[in-house]
Amino acid sequence: MKIGVLGTGMVGQALSGKMVELGHDVMVGTRDVTGTLARTEPHPYGFPAFSVWLKQNPGVKVATLADAAQHGEIVINATNGVSSIEALRQAGETNLNGKILIDVANPLDFSQGAPPTLSISNTDSLGEQIQRAFPQVKVVKALNTVTASLMVNPRQLADGDHHMFVSGNDTDAKAQVINILTTWFGWKHIIDLGGITTARGTEMYLPIWLRLWGALGTGMFNVKIME
Amino acid sequence: MKIGVLGTGMVGQALSGKMVELGHDVMVGTRDVTGTLARTEPHPYGFPAFSVWLKQNPGVKVATLADAAQHGEIVINATNGVSSIEALRQAGETNLNGKILIDVANPLDFSQGAPPTLSISNTDSLGEQIQRAFPQVKVVKALNTVTASLMVNPRQLADGDHHMFVSGNDTDAKAQVINILTTWFGWKHIIDLGGITTARGTEMYLPIWLRLWGALGTGMFNVKIME
Repeated sequence: MKIGVLGTGMVGQALSGKMVELGHDVMVGTRDVTGTLARTEPHPYGFPAFSVWLKQNPGVKVATLADAAQHGEIVINATNGVSSIEALRQAGETNLNGKILIDVANPLDFSQGAPPTLSISNTDSLGEQIQRAFPQVKVVKALNTVTASLMVNPRQLADGDHHMFVSGNDTDAKAQVINILTTWFGWKHIIDLGGITTARGTEMYLPIWLRLWGALGTGMFNVKIME
Repeated sequence: MKIGVLGTGMVGQALSGKMVELGHDVMVGTRDVTGTLARTEPHPYGFPAFSVWLKQNPGVKVATLADAAQHGEIVINATNGVSSIEALRQAGETNLNGKILIDVANPLDFSQGAPPTLSISNTDSLGEQIQRAFPQVKVVKALNTVTASLMVNPRQLADGDHHMFVSGNDTDAKAQVINILTTWFGWKHIIDLGGITTARGTEMYLPIWLRLWGALGTGMFNVKIME
């Protein structure tokens, strides 16, 4: 399948690498192709520069945001959440219309230091903002509640015995995303929270996720819903 | 032990009833004692009026917020989160100073309908506001992430195999609260998230809790942290 991945950070790398490994035709989009390919220093969080990572993942194509969006039958938003709307505008509404957009981003605002606050929350969410800005795109919020490597390999933790959540207005689109999470990545437990407004729930979960990361000393955890 | 419980709703009832059952000397405080004892119609959420509940729990004492706060060696804030600061001012700073205040409240704002938003969030939390307003009180945020009956009887769900979180600046106070949660109520797994600012995490967890309640059709669930 042709997939467009917007964003070259830790999440874009994890998703692209996994999907190429599975045999998909993945094009990663970035605002500044030349600049992205020129940078070689690791990110402060410890993951490699995209150009370094790319050498180990040569099957991944690199292009502009617009080209990656056009390429994808499904598009994934793995850009920085505080500037996702702007990045999606660069990707181009006509390149996105009618497609499923899996929104993995969180609007984490580090401008006042760590831990970050959310640039959108409580009465709105990034998922909703994207859906309003691109009404003909089928936005499905998913994967934003776990660390990047867990997104694509949930069974490395407790043999996958923990939960993922999806939010979105289009039932068929959600069913397709659930199928991708299950059959491509190996998710066992997925809860459909409802329409895209329920993305407020999963985005506002980030503050406790970040404090748990601090308390546990690792991002390699997730919640299992016990009922 | 002498306990003051501020608030007569579902949470105040569950906590008071359990602690009286355990043999503690519990005084419940309410803004309007006469009015609270006069109302007999059930709450719209289905739990009984306090006066009706009280007949089945005759060991519970009822008084003003100030008397209940003065009575307690430990005080529990189970008031409506959007007006907790005001209720605590009525309870009186001198009646609270030096004591542990277990803050169970969530600042859920139903003024725009359901699901509620938070009246405080993101860059602040109710726990922090209370700690700032009452600097000599040892505020420990706890129990606000589960439905009332689970707070005091966690083993009714998955034999207690799920997590509770605590936040607070005073290490000894947190240790005492953890001891209460464990030995009185039966909590097996408690994670200390850190200082009171981490209450942002557990309060902002409410939006996903509310959506899960909708998706699962029951409030009788909780998260287990898998790591």
